[in-house]
Amino acid sequence: MNEKKGKQSIKFGNPPYILGAAAVAGPKEIDGPMARYFDRVSEDATFGKDSWEEGESEMVRQAVTLAIQKAGIVKQDIRYIFAGDLLGQLIASTFGIKDMEIPVFGLYGACSTCGEALSLASMTVAAGYADNVIAEASSHYGSAEKQFRFPLEYGNQRPLSATWTVTGSGAFVVSDRESDVCIQGVTTGQIVDYGVKDSLNMGACMAPAAAAVIYQNLQDFGIKPTYYDRIITGDLGKVGKTILEDLLSMNNVDISANHMDCGIEIFENEEQDTHSGGSGCGCSATVLAGYILKKVSSGEWKRVLFVPTGALLSTVSYNEGQTIPGIAHAVMIEHHEKKGE
Amino acid sequence: MNEKKGKQSIKFGNPPYILGAAAVAGPKEIDGPMARYFDRVSEDATFGKDSWEEGESEMVRQAVTLAIQKAGIVKQDIRYIFAGDLLGQLIASTFGIKDMEIPVFGLYGACSTCGEALSLASMTVAAGYADNVIAEASSHYGSAEKQFRFPLEYGNQRPLSATWTVTGSGAFVVSDRESDVCIQGVTTGQIVDYGVKDSLNMGACMAPAAAAVIYQNLQDFGIKPTYYDRIITGDLGKVGKTILEDLLSMNNVDISANHMDCGIEIFENEEQDTHSGGSGCGCSATVLAGYILKKVSSGEWKRVLFVPTGALLSTVSYNEGQTIPGIAHAVMIEHHEKKGE
Repeated sequence: MNEKKGKQSIKFGNPPYILGAAAVAGPKEIDGPMARYFDRVSEDATFGKDSWEEGESEMVRQAVTLAIQKAGIVKQDIRYIFAGDLLGQLIASTFGIKDMEIPVFGLYGACSTCGEALSLASMTVAAGYADNVIAEASSHYGSAEKQFRFPLEYGNQRPLSATWTVTGSGAFVVSDRESDVCIQGVTTGQIVDYGVKDSLNMGACMAPAAAAVIYQNLQDFGIKPTYYDRIITGDLGKVGKTILEDLLSMNNVDISANHMDCGIEIFENEEQDTHSGGSGCGCSATVLAGYILKKVSSGEWKRVLFVPTGALLSTVSYNEGQTIPGIAHAVMIEHHEKKGE
Repeated sequence: MNEKKGKQSIKFGNPPYILGAAAVAGPKEIDGPMARYFDRVSEDATFGKDSWEEGESEMVRQAVTLAIQKAGIVKQDIRYIFAGDLLGQLIASTFGIKDMEIPVFGLYGACSTCGEALSLASMTVAAGYADNVIAEASSHYGSAEKQFRFPLEYGNQRPLSATWTVTGSGAFVVSDRESDVCIQGVTTGQIVDYGVKDSLNMGACMAPAAAAVIYQNLQDFGIKPTYYDRIITGDLGKVGKTILEDLLSMNNVDISANHMDCGIEIFENEEQDTHSGGSGCGCSATVLAGYILKKVSSGEWKRVLFVPTGALLSTVSYNEGQTIPGIAHAVMIEHHEKKGE
């Protein structure tokens, strides 16, 4: 029996499983410490296509196709796809999946989209609406910089608080078929706005939303941070990580011992000049698909709270002087001991 | 017991209800035949704010607030909000709902977003994940034209196949509490791409997706078009309506007797110079909230298939020579005879 927990959470009666996952990433990511965990990396930022946007779509297509293969099923077994990216009107997702003939729910949660997709995917499977669905999220450094900031050719300077958008896509088959990783529950985030306006300090924009959803998850389930082997945020980077831990400690919650941030892990930030860390929907999605799930699958980590974080801005809202609110969604991912077959 | 039906549909065991709905629209809509059914209309396209975008957010805020009021509940009773709009990174929704302190799922399905939101909202309530949720969608003529086409000041000519983006927001409280309108099931659309590239003929881009999802709904439930009092598409306009009816008749499905399109209904298209009809997420959302639900609530219409339609493009994909694929989501809205209390 699925159960509403507290103010913002759901605990699944029959937790859905992650049956297969794939991470596909770009050239900058090859030099990062996560590259060896990814299924596929490309030296070519356009993935053999004519533009960054088409390249991002190609990356989406590859990640979804690989995840389905790795789950040992076929495309026809997938009932829905929950997908999103950072580009206006979700063109990376649209053109990546348009020929797959799978019903689509397009999602936008900025860089929290992987958490939003996994939440809705697991809610859908746990409710019995589908046997297998896909959750997917992507971002691309070239297409994102072009859209949100400056032309790459301009070579603008970046403050140390800035993050580097990950070129990557992570795709997941969420299923009612048993595997060694399950999704026990989800905590859905509210929009949190502390009034930050600096689009080159997204960690500061997102940290309050991450703090709020982590705090609420612990409240709703009546647990302490040590319940989890890791509490893993999406792309706060170094600046955001400090703010997150400060905000939580003000509420007497200490996650410093088991907090990890995908943005900090994905690059060698000093050497690779990525400053505060990696960011983008693809950051948490690829680190989850490539690295975190292996740790959970093997049982090295029993329980992980996965918390992708998003900064809600557009160039229009930014140029009109609006703040940059944040959002974050928490997904409880746990090791599952498979019964003997 | 909720039930998977056929390839793309769900039939709800305990159908959720629409407990309250509100339609808020702008100045052009005041002169259209639907204005008298709307809850609120504004002579001012910025709704008292400084920009079209902020005006759109204000419209969202008003529609959501009104829908909650009309449902006879309070904000604290709402567990999730499913919302989306046409603007890059969903800024209209974000800034409209950011202070409501309700967990958010941001959605993008172009002008099909109202169908996507109602589908996920009803799936969420029918699964027992929430007692009350909001589904909401908006669009704004000024903010959409500025983003997708030309500056309004340029005064470009528009071909007769073009549609006019509706300034409007429709919000719905989907609930497990009985009312006289329920959602019996949903059929979720795939992306359909017939290779059309004309962004000033969106009816042609979307009609194939509408035809596919209507056909699939009839197949999945084993019913004929006459099962419904009305089959109501979102914003195909006159051009798209003809194509839709032609495509379906090629598959021996005749909906000409009971087809209606919100884009054709919302304006006096000849007099108001809106050419093929109204469009935008707000078109189907306001016509549903203001007009269709009154007909279903009164029992004049017993069963309606509501099919918002979306054209998946951005200026980037368009300028890079991509096609404009379509998507549509079908929601089965039915009159419910309330038991005596």
